[in-house]
Amino acid sequence: MAQMTVTPWEVRGAIDYDRLIEIFGVKPLTDDLVKLTEKIAGENHLFLRRRVFYAHRDYDVFLKRYTEGGAVALYTGRGPSSRVHLGHLVPWIFTKWLQERLGLELYFQLTDDEKFLYHREYSLEHTNSMAYENLLDLIALGFDPSKTHVIVDSDDIALLYKIAVRVAKKITASVVKSVFGFTDSTNIGMYFFPSLQIAMCFLPSELRREVVLVLIPAAIDQDPYWRVARDIATSLGYPKPAQIHSKFLPGLGPEGKMSSSKPETAIYTTDPPEQVYRKIMNAFTSGQPTAAMQRKLGGNPDRCPVFAYYAMLFEEDDKKLEERYHRCRNGELLCGECKRELAERVAKFIEEHQRRRGKAKDIVESFLLRTKIRSRR
Amino acid sequence: MAQMTVTPWEVRGAIDYDRLIEIFGVKPLTDDLVKLTEKIAGENHLFLRRRVFYAHRDYDVFLKRYTEGGAVALYTGRGPSSRVHLGHLVPWIFTKWLQERLGLELYFQLTDDEKFLYHREYSLEHTNSMAYENLLDLIALGFDPSKTHVIVDSDDIALLYKIAVRVAKKITASVVKSVFGFTDSTNIGMYFFPSLQIAMCFLPSELRREVVLVLIPAAIDQDPYWRVARDIATSLGYPKPAQIHSKFLPGLGPEGKMSSSKPETAIYTTDPPEQVYRKIMNAFTSGQPTAAMQRKLGGNPDRCPVFAYYAMLFEEDDKKLEERYHRCRNGELLCGECKRELAERVAKFIEEHQRRRGKAKDIVESFLLRTKIRSRR
Repeated sequence: MAQMTVTPWEVRGAIDYDRLIEIFGVKPLTDDLVKLTEKIAGENHLFLRRRVFYAHRDYDVFLKRYTEGGAVALYTGRGPSSRVHLGHLVPWIFTKWLQERLGLELYFQLTDDEKFLYHREYSLEHTNSMAYENLLDLIALGFDPSKTHVIVDSDDIALLYKIAVRVAKKITASVVKSVFGFTDSTNIGMYFFPSLQIAMCFLPSELRREVVLVLIPAAIDQDPYWRVARDIATSLGYPKPAQIHSKFLPGLGPEGKMSSSKPETAIYTTDPPEQVYRKIMNAFTSGQPTAAMQRKLGGNPDRCPVFAYYAMLFEEDDKKLEERYHRCRNGELLCGECKRELAERVAKFIEEHQRRRGKAKDIVESFLLRTKIRSRR
Repeated sequence: MAQMTVTPWEVRGAIDYDRLIEIFGVKPLTDDLVKLTEKIAGENHLFLRRRVFYAHRDYDVFLKRYTEGGAVALYTGRGPSSRVHLGHLVPWIFTKWLQERLGLELYFQLTDDEKFLYHREYSLEHTNSMAYENLLDLIALGFDPSKTHVIVDSDDIALLYKIAVRVAKKITASVVKSVFGFTDSTNIGMYFFPSLQIAMCFLPSELRREVVLVLIPAAIDQDPYWRVARDIATSLGYPKPAQIHSKFLPGLGPEGKMSSSKPETAIYTTDPPEQVYRKIMNAFTSGQPTAAMQRKLGGNPDRCPVFAYYAMLFEEDDKKLEERYHRCRNGELLCGECKRELAERVAKFIEEHQRRRGKAKDIVESFLLRTKIRSRR
């Protein structure tokens, strides 16, 4: 088995999520916290009960503050290196649910500068235009424009820079070397960038002129930023940001998260539905080499990306999911059939997403923080 | 004699300007270039004939491009850590002369972010307010607002950031460590900052949408930035910036440049004239311990800050300066008298400067690049 690598820029190998909890020093999401969330939200979410979101920092503190009527907000983001795939939607779908159920403002950062600085081959024009492309996917999920405030780093730097330099002054090169693995060969833009992702944790407090505690729903690979953010928050007069961490939607290959570096194993939101269908039919599964063997020995849903797609996104019904699990295990359900059903559901989802994405173009402005600030002046 | 240290953040010890030419790898300003400048400008300047500006990079290329009608501009700036002193005015006075005589646009950068990041004890509010204070001194010198475009980093970052990230992507941590002496304990804001000072070299090209060659008149301690700027300019599609380097106005103590870290040895533009007078009367000179000895042995004007003030700023007449030199050397001129005369001239200059500085407050807006860009929209 390949060694596991989980950093903000690379997720590779078979991921041991329990080990990540130890490595990153976060807490597992307890049954009590899931129940409390569902009580507050007034409904259950499969991402919680199935532990797609599975770890946290101060999520309990966040919920307490929320229930006591304290100032809170949501913050998440996206590094717009390329098109959005299904894996990116996981934290967004949950964020949208939190926004809706708890009535929260969301601050959303598109880090076109980071992706330009990281990828040798990308121009800033490319990552900047991808930022606005990716934003269409966010909007397509149905976020409330009056409560969703988007910034694109290179266009909205004026909103972040003064906070970012105060953050940067607190962080030595040595810290970003050890936390992010930077070396002396890393460019100085990358050295500074963490200041901007961290500054967003504190932007709501600055804009609202009150102490706002942010909760960051994001995939667990972003955790290094929040560790540093939490280390310096208090000295800057801000509350430590809270996090709730998700697992990765697997790629359609044998291991690792869905990744843009392996396009055949990722379902992009802009893939034609036929291509989505084809990609899923070509997916790796945990099945046996032949139908006869599958019937005899059964499959292994615990290590199957196709089953993971049902579990994480495409089977809401717990009973049906359990049935599928057992029918796979005992050899009753063959991979072809299982993939076909999934392919149909995903293609339908993508089709619907693309319809809403097409309409999103008309309302982009209403999501941009700069537009709102300008109109307020 | 203390060891010489010359970096953008520290100038210490007795400065060997010839040695700096070697260390920094710049060229001495030749008689031919001085004559050519005076021919183009239509007049002589004491900073040139007395080699207050004494070294350069591609100043010849700049003059050639200018005479051929190519696009050129001036760029200089100020790190607003504290009040402006006479030493800061030296490059500005020369820049103003170039602007006037050659009809050039000047881009002027106030790096409040840098000074905040560098000085542990300063808040961003402090360095930002010093930026606008310092700007009054620039304006008091009589720059043409229609041709002088000022940016304050933390307020105008939007104008620079996209250029700066393209610059930053070309510079590794290793480069800023060796060029600026940064270590792993330096904060990540300082690591990024050179991108912003370098980005200003390229801003005129971006704003004017043509290839603009900038000439940077500045004190020689800023040279490390320009070395890096020149290394990466071509790969970003910009011309290498040219520089003309000045010496430092000495402090009123025995050695080193006039420095805000030794306030008793610096003449601030906002010092009350009586205080200016007193500071000069208390200055270190090269004189002998007693008047009798002075008359017998003479002084050493080559190592006297008081004489340097005459030579650099307060005696336009070459003949009178020469006379003063010899009268000091042969013991005719006593230090008390020499200081009294200087004190009167400097106090008068400061009084006049303060009068114009007082009026500058009303026209600050007309110098800000952001104001011009907004009104153009």
